[in-house]
Amino acid sequence: MFPETGLGSLAVAPAATAVFTAVLTEGPLSRVSLARRLGLSSAAVTKAARPLIDTGYLHELAATERTGPGAGRPASPLAVRADREFFVGVKITADELIGVVCDLRAAVRATARRPLAAPDVEAVLTDLGQLVDGLLDGPGDYRVRTRRLGLAISGDVDRTTGLVRYSPFLQWRNVPLGQRVARITGLAATVENDVKALTAAEHWFGEGVGAESFALVTVGTGIGCGLVVHGRLVSGSHGVAGEIGHLAVDANGPSCHCGGRGCVEAIAGTQAIVRQARERTGRPELTIDAAVALARAGDEQVGAVFARAGNAIGSGIAAVANLVGPARIVVSGEGLAAYDLFEAHIRTGFERQAFGAAAQCPLSIRPLPFEEWARGAAAVSIQSLVVP
Amino acid sequence: MFPETGLGSLAVAPAATAVFTAVLTEGPLSRVSLARRLGLSSAAVTKAARPLIDTGYLHELAATERTGPGAGRPASPLAVRADREFFVGVKITADELIGVVCDLRAAVRATARRPLAAPDVEAVLTDLGQLVDGLLDGPGDYRVRTRRLGLAISGDVDRTTGLVRYSPFLQWRNVPLGQRVARITGLAATVENDVKALTAAEHWFGEGVGAESFALVTVGTGIGCGLVVHGRLVSGSHGVAGEIGHLAVDANGPSCHCGGRGCVEAIAGTQAIVRQARERTGRPELTIDAAVALARAGDEQVGAVFARAGNAIGSGIAAVANLVGPARIVVSGEGLAAYDLFEAHIRTGFERQAFGAAAQCPLSIRPLPFEEWARGAAAVSIQSLVVP
Ligand SMILES: [Zn+2]
Ligand SMILES: [Zn+2]
Repeated sequence: MFPETGLGSLAVAPAATAVFTAVLTEGPLSRVSLARRLGLSSAAVTKAARPLIDTGYLHELAATERTGPGAGRPASPLAVRADREFFVGVKITADELIGVVCDLRAAVRATARRPLAAPDVEAVLTDLGQLVDGLLDGPGDYRVRTRRLGLAISGDVDRTTGLVRYSPFLQWRNVPLGQRVARITGLAATVENDVKALTAAEHWFGEGVGAESFALVTVGTGIGCGLVVHGRLVSGSHGVAGEIGHLAVDANGPSCHCGGRGCVEAIAGTQAIVRQARERTGRPELTIDAAVALARAGDEQVGAVFARAGNAIGSGIAAVANLVGPARIVVSGEGLAAYDLFEAHIRTGFERQAFGAAAQCPLSIRPLPFEEWARGAAAVSIQSLVVP
Repeated sequence: MFPETGLGSLAVAPAATAVFTAVLTEGPLSRVSLARRLGLSSAAVTKAARPLIDTGYLHELAATERTGPGAGRPASPLAVRADREFFVGVKITADELIGVVCDLRAAVRATARRPLAAPDVEAVLTDLGQLVDGLLDGPGDYRVRTRRLGLAISGDVDRTTGLVRYSPFLQWRNVPLGQRVARITGLAATVENDVKALTAAEHWFGEGVGAESFALVTVGTGIGCGLVVHGRLVSGSHGVAGEIGHLAVDANGPSCHCGGRGCVEAIAGTQAIVRQARERTGRPELTIDAAVALARAGDEQVGAVFARAGNAIGSGIAAVANLVGPARIVVSGEGLAAYDLFEAHIRTGFERQAFGAAAQCPLSIRPLPFEEWARGAAAVSIQSLVVP
């Protein structure tokens, strides 16, 4: 059941999975506190932990606490050996691959980028193989302890089979990406929607740790949301969940590519911002970078576009808080490079629409480097090791 | 552990709770299919079921299926004895009590209504005691097999303690309603928010049976929503969830009592409809009934008010589908007495804003007699018997 058997999950028994997950995401933890929080006997915790220690995934720290005042032997907390295994994570965008090597605790150890020669599947696979080789054979000697790779891509993805059903930016349909990448790299591949992958990273290794419920909102070309409720990612009975970008917040707003009207994304997505900035300035050549620069320089027309966008995002986030009531919400994404133009308006929109105590939900609003998306992909790969 | 011990829950062991819940909500079920769906051994199912049979809560139906082709003894499905125990349910409104007696499968056996003399706590408790006495001592002889009562009330309720933190219609704050009612009636009382109680009834005994996720939307004075995700009611980390009424769907819409703008409730709540109908017709005395009558008679101005309201509700429901992706959504409430004026517009709004496959989520739109709210209260009482 351990590394010798190749690419099976680390632990088969539910107790072992629970112990390893708890130590990995919330550790170091003593056996006593593990038993308490998991509702297991001390003997069961010890039994579950032993093979994880024997194979080097867990180790005992020096004793730091005692189980009772003056009595018993000191408790040695269990901790994860972060460098026991490494994981590759790759975010695939329309024009570039962003890759990382992470350790078992999802700390980034190495990064690399590679522009895409072309967006077709074969070309992307070639580039991806070279990116992974570069990461694993570079400094750090990661290859020998790397068996798994995670891929994050926007669109409709079946994590179970590794199938990309539809990727709008790459125009891929029904690509068995997981299988293809496993064959090329020799690594076990997990494929996940990029927003869900980022949510997994926050849930296990970020601000969502320990939260029963949690939301991540991403702002950029698209506006997406990953939701954790009752400790599990919400995937939607009909395959749709977290589509905050298509909540209607303005009955007389612009029509959206989805067929709706006044969607958050139709007001606050990158393309929508560029379109509105062009209209308001009468400058049809304006780019998003130029719009950001104008707004920062005090242009009122363009500033109003960002204000409206931030307000729409805030309304959408309030909808998440009012309906689901997450313990906390992280707002991030490449769109938040223009963080300074958005933040106050996101908060205003949220505070206006959050109902009663829902306004107490803490919002973390912060920019998101592209490497974080790749780290999300690595986090999904780590989950595939831990959870059978 | 059974009735002899008074008002404890029916079953203490998790397996017994699982068996009884499955038979109650989805039965009759054979031991074989119970074992399969619960991941238990046949022996564990038999052991769990025995005391439930001994105390008369379950019984075996005549054999109807065989466990294998031509072999083995025939399987006798287990079923609930619906008349083993009865439950009172009471919905408390601002001016009336609506009461029911339900059997163990939440079928309504008797109903009664009583106008409230006054909305203060003592007066309501007096009326409530008399309503319950009338229900239990009337035809049917329910008193001898009734030990529990459920109460449903709009507002902020702590089900665990039976405390009504705040009831806007009655203007109650911090009323220990469960304790007071238990003392007056001699029954074990469970108190729940009315929308959550109705959601519980649909989840266990209605269209939500067997669904991993499910939503109930109520339309009336307020517009509310109960959500079941991963098989459990969503309660919100900050005590707020399901507040569909305060989603912003119109950035330039009317301001709402919550401080927001363009909330669903500010457009489609009963008071909002009356206000808009008065404005459009210039008739300040118009009531909701008169507005409904005018719209039905073809008045375009008032018809447009209902159309806008239905559209706003549909947008709100689409937000639920887009974010959470329930398996199905029931739309009901006293506001749907004007069902014929609403339904098409609710569906239009929903279909416009539901994203991709989220539009496949089935909507059941139907009126809701007040007795259904009382049945929801009884369902919560049944849950308190079944789930420790
Ligand atoms: Zn849209
Ligand atoms: Zn409101």
